[in-house]
Amino acid sequence: MNVENCKATRPSQPLSPQNVRDLFASVDAFLFDCDGVIWKGNTLIDGVPQTLEMLRSKGKKLVFVTNNSTKSRRQYAEKFHSLGIPVCEDEIFSSSFAAAMYLKLIDFPRDKKVYVIGEEGLLEELERAGYTGLGGPDDGKKMVQLKPNSLFEHDMSVGAVVVGLDQYINYYKLHMVITCRYGTLCIRENPGCLFIATNQDAVGHMTDLQEWPGAGCMVAAICGSTQKEPIVVGKPSTFMMDFLLQKFQIDTSKMCMVGDRLDTDILFGQNAGCTTLLVLSGVTNLSTLQDPSNNIQPDYHTNKVSDILKLLE
Amino acid sequence: MNVENCKATRPSQPLSPQNVRDLFASVDAFLFDCDGVIWKGNTLIDGVPQTLEMLRSKGKKLVFVTNNSTKSRRQYAEKFHSLGIPVCEDEIFSSSFAAAMYLKLIDFPRDKKVYVIGEEGLLEELERAGYTGLGGPDDGKKMVQLKPNSLFEHDMSVGAVVVGLDQYINYYKLHMVITCRYGTLCIRENPGCLFIATNQDAVGHMTDLQEWPGAGCMVAAICGSTQKEPIVVGKPSTFMMDFLLQKFQIDTSKMCMVGDRLDTDILFGQNAGCTTLLVLSGVTNLSTLQDPSNNIQPDYHTNKVSDILKLLE
Repeated sequence: MNVENCKATRPSQPLSPQNVRDLFASVDAFLFDCDGVIWKGNTLIDGVPQTLEMLRSKGKKLVFVTNNSTKSRRQYAEKFHSLGIPVCEDEIFSSSFAAAMYLKLIDFPRDKKVYVIGEEGLLEELERAGYTGLGGPDDGKKMVQLKPNSLFEHDMSVGAVVVGLDQYINYYKLHMVITCRYGTLCIRENPGCLFIATNQDAVGHMTDLQEWPGAGCMVAAICGSTQKEPIVVGKPSTFMMDFLLQKFQIDTSKMCMVGDRLDTDILFGQNAGCTTLLVLSGVTNLSTLQDPSNNIQPDYHTNKVSDILKLLE
Repeated sequence: MNVENCKATRPSQPLSPQNVRDLFASVDAFLFDCDGVIWKGNTLIDGVPQTLEMLRSKGKKLVFVTNNSTKSRRQYAEKFHSLGIPVCEDEIFSSSFAAAMYLKLIDFPRDKKVYVIGEEGLLEELERAGYTGLGGPDDGKKMVQLKPNSLFEHDMSVGAVVVGLDQYINYYKLHMVITCRYGTLCIRENPGCLFIATNQDAVGHMTDLQEWPGAGCMVAAICGSTQKEPIVVGKPSTFMMDFLLQKFQIDTSKMCMVGDRLDTDILFGQNAGCTTLLVLSGVTNLSTLQDPSNNIQPDYHTNKVSDILKLLE
């Protein structure tokens, strides 16, 4: 018999002076997404530092879980410091770090190389985990000419391709990861080549004024040509949660995931068994949340992170 | 009551000295795909000129239907001539031409512009149809920097985006077509902006030695960020068939579509009611054709176009 879960999804509750107290009392760690939650581009969202400071002063653990793979943990810690927020590397779980941890976990051989569609931070995390990354910004200016009889040379020792947000994406890189009849670097023709995606976010707020194509754009390009699906290490996959639990040893039912995106942040929180809070300061607005076609309902929603502080006062 | 079509698909028959005569007798026009059928890169596939010459001499119409949008009809005619095959522009139906014809058909206003992810041939067809194309190779070297407070300027008069194979694809172009909060050039935020794909081929044989990322790669990148589906004017859409019928006035049951790709060529032929012949000189091999997971069966298959000539002798 086919038993379906027919429980209706409970609509999200607006955060209120009443329920914020229950939330606060039941949670030992707050997990924050960054883009659209903490900042937009290099601009902090109003009231964030005071709210984080209050949470820390009340003994809450703070963790930052971001799908943006362009920076390493070290670079994120620097960014937090430059914005006047004291955060240490251990509190940051970025999808760049997750990609490196995934390779470590599966004992990916250190004598094989990793081709990267992505930026500096992703290469740095791979290097810190002991791997050799190729591609990245270095291949951003390379061109490939479709001349007759032209054969594309590949590094034979590449055993994995990692795809994240890359503002230097080009045809050269797409070709590198997609197809080569003679090398091992080849998702399409070599089933042994790993295809890892840091995340699949459609768009991001890489600057404070506009949306920009996200890693989902690059990943879709690869899927479109290889017709293979990647291993996704970023949200909504709970892969990062295992590392987070090792570090903090707090039951996920005592965590609250705070994010601006339903299909990554809120789904990640729900998949891991956390309480979830959607903030409307990023890519999701109230009408999207309440649209009948949306079937991802967080426990709570509010305009921005600092509402926690305001409502607790 | 839900009535499903349960007719089992008849497995493809290898072309033989017997059935090739039936095929030849029943068909007034042969429709040929080009890449992987007529040529690979700039190299003709063995026996093609003699076969085409024989078909013409027996009064068969020859038509060339290609999803490769990098060339215009004029440029394809030139390529045929340079390879020693007399083909005129009217016999060529390329997806670059189809994209321009689509805009004409819907009376797309001539004072609006068309942003192009694609190459020279696509721009040329748009221009010949009276439209102004932007982007293309000209934007291939442009870069976009994700700086805080940076705002991307868009041409406000763009009303359609056409996406085809583009070896100069970059983040600048992806951003141009995906998102702009302030302009009309915006598939993502402006429902009025048309999103047209020349085709969705995953890979192509742009050179004779390797497979290369196809237009499907670029189209998927846009879909991945916009989460919208394009209007596809190339095969397997039968959009081009209407123009072909206007020109040749032959019933589709009297046509045979010859191609190397199941999900474009053969499906196109079947959708239009043609007889279909798969040649194994391109992207599809016999084991793919006969794999139980493949549900697209042509009427016939053979190694290459010149088998028609050989088997008729």
